[in-house]
Amino acid sequence: MTFSAGEAREGEAAPSLAILCGGGAFPIEVAAEARRAGREPFLIGIVGSTDAAIEDYPHVWLRMGEVGKLFAALKERGVGEMVMIGAMTRPEFADLRLDWGAVKRAADLAQLFRRGDNGLLVGLAAIFEREGVRIVGAHEVAPNLAARAGLLGARPVSPDDRADVAFGARLLEALSVFDGGQASVVAAGRVLAIEAAEGTDGMLARVAELRTSQRLRLKGPAGVLVKAPKRGQDLRLDMPAIGPRTIEGAAAAQLRGVALAAGRVLVLERERCIRTADTAGLFVTGF
Amino acid sequence: MTFSAGEAREGEAAPSLAILCGGGAFPIEVAAEARRAGREPFLIGIVGSTDAAIEDYPHVWLRMGEVGKLFAALKERGVGEMVMIGAMTRPEFADLRLDWGAVKRAADLAQLFRRGDNGLLVGLAAIFEREGVRIVGAHEVAPNLAARAGLLGARPVSPDDRADVAFGARLLEALSVFDGGQASVVAAGRVLAIEAAEGTDGMLARVAELRTSQRLRLKGPAGVLVKAPKRGQDLRLDMPAIGPRTIEGAAAAQLRGVALAAGRVLVLERERCIRTADTAGLFVTGF
Repeated sequence: MTFSAGEAREGEAAPSLAILCGGGAFPIEVAAEARRAGREPFLIGIVGSTDAAIEDYPHVWLRMGEVGKLFAALKERGVGEMVMIGAMTRPEFADLRLDWGAVKRAADLAQLFRRGDNGLLVGLAAIFEREGVRIVGAHEVAPNLAARAGLLGARPVSPDDRADVAFGARLLEALSVFDGGQASVVAAGRVLAIEAAEGTDGMLARVAELRTSQRLRLKGPAGVLVKAPKRGQDLRLDMPAIGPRTIEGAAAAQLRGVALAAGRVLVLERERCIRTADTAGLFVTGF
Repeated sequence: MTFSAGEAREGEAAPSLAILCGGGAFPIEVAAEARRAGREPFLIGIVGSTDAAIEDYPHVWLRMGEVGKLFAALKERGVGEMVMIGAMTRPEFADLRLDWGAVKRAADLAQLFRRGDNGLLVGLAAIFEREGVRIVGAHEVAPNLAARAGLLGARPVSPDDRADVAFGARLLEALSVFDGGQASVVAAGRVLAIEAAEGTDGMLARVAELRTSQRLRLKGPAGVLVKAPKRGQDLRLDMPAIGPRTIEGAAAAQLRGVALAAGRVLVLERERCIRTADTAGLFVTGF
C-alpha cells in the first residue's frame, strides 16, 4: 500500500521535501515514512539536539542561529516543503550564534523571541513561507504516523469505555475555547484529571500517584486517557503525540485504555506502543 | 454588625440548630459564629474524628453507625436545622456499629453506601429531612465565614489580575457541565493548571513543582488561583473551602493571588489566611 502510494507520487513531481529535525527518534520515523512514500527527504540537524541517524539521509548540520546557512541549503536543494518536528529546547535570542543570513533578519527574529512558544513557531513558519518554503505537518507527509479511527491494538473497547471517550472528547472540546488542555482522564463519567502545563506524562503520573496512595479509590483498571488537539491548533507546527512512555504512564495509572483523535494525534514508535498496550491489557483506539 | 444580626434573630425564634461536626477546627468556627449570631448550637461529635473543643458547647458524642442515638438526641433537643461540616473519612458500611435506630433504617443506609461520596451525602440529607431536620449550609448560619466580594487582604488586584480572574471564572463555568474542577490557575490568559481528583492543594503543589524545576518558566509572581463551586453543587453538603494551607500553597506556587466566588467559598481561619497572604504579598479577593 505504501509502495503503490509512492509510485503514484512519482508522476506528480511533489516538491522537494526537507525535515527540520529536533531531538528524539521521531524525525527519523517521519523521514523513513516519507522515503517509503517515494519522497527522498533532505534532513536538517541541529548540533546538540538532533540524532546522528539523520546521516542515513541527505542532510546538513547547523548550529542554532545559522539562519543564513539554513536558507542557502534549502535554496540549493530546491526545497518547496518542510516539516518541523521533534523536541527542541527553546534558545534565548541572546544565545543564538547569528550568521549573516540571520543578522539580515535579526529585527524579525528578535521580535519573534518576545512571543510565547506557539507565537515563536507561527512566526518562524511565516518567515519560511515568505522565502517560498511551505511548512507542512508530519501527518501530511507521513499519514501512517497519525492515529487512525478504530482499534490500534488487540484489546477491545466496551460500551462504557466508549461513553467515557465521548465524554472526554466533549470536555476537551469545551476547554478548547480557553486554549486549555489537550488531554484528560475520565472514569465512568467522572473527570479524574485534566492536563494543562504539566503535560500528558505529568497528568498520568498524578493519576498513578492518587491511585497507589489510595486517595483515589477505584477497583481494578478504570478510566480512559482521551487526547486531542485544541480547536484551531496548527497541526503543522504543534501536533499532539503519544509514544511508548505515554502507554506506560497509562498502565501505571491503572487505566483501561487510550483514545486518540484520529488523524490528529501522532503515534511515535507505533509497534512498541501497541505491544506495550497489548501486554498491559490497555486498549488503544482512534475516535 | 454581627451582634445586631444576633439581636434581630432573637425575636424570630429561629429553629434549634445542631452541627454535625467532622474533623478539624472549622466546625468549632461555625459554632462560634452561630453563637455570635444568637443561636446556641447543639454539637454532635463523632468519636475518633471530631475535635474535643465541641465540649465548650452543648454536645453529644456518637460512634459511626449510632443512628438511633443521633435521631433521639435531635428529637430531645427539638432540632429543626442541622449543619454537616468538617472532614470525615468515609466509613465502609460493613464497619459501622449499627444501633437499633440504624438497623430499622438499614435497608436505606445500605443503599446509600452503594453511591459515590456526593450521592451518599445527598441521601443522608434526605433521611434527616424526612425526620423533620432541615439541612442548612455553614454559610447560612455563619455568613461571615464565606468569602465576600472585594478585597479580603491588603494587596490590591491589578487590571491584568482581574482579567485572569474573569478568564478563570469562565473556564470553571464551562467545566461545570462536566462536573469537573472547582479550581484553576491562570496566568496572563494562559491556563497553567485545572483541578480534578487531586484537589486544590495537589494542584498548587504541581504548579510549585513546575516552577521550581523550571519546566514552567515565568518571571516573578505569576498567576491567580480561581476557586468556585460547580454549577448545581449543593452548598449545604459540599461547599468549596480554602484555609491557611491553600494560601501557603499559592505562595509556594509563586502566584500573584487568590480569587474566590463571593458567598460560595468558605474561608477557614480567615485571620490567619489574610495574615499569611499579606506577608507573602498575595492578594485575596472575592468575585
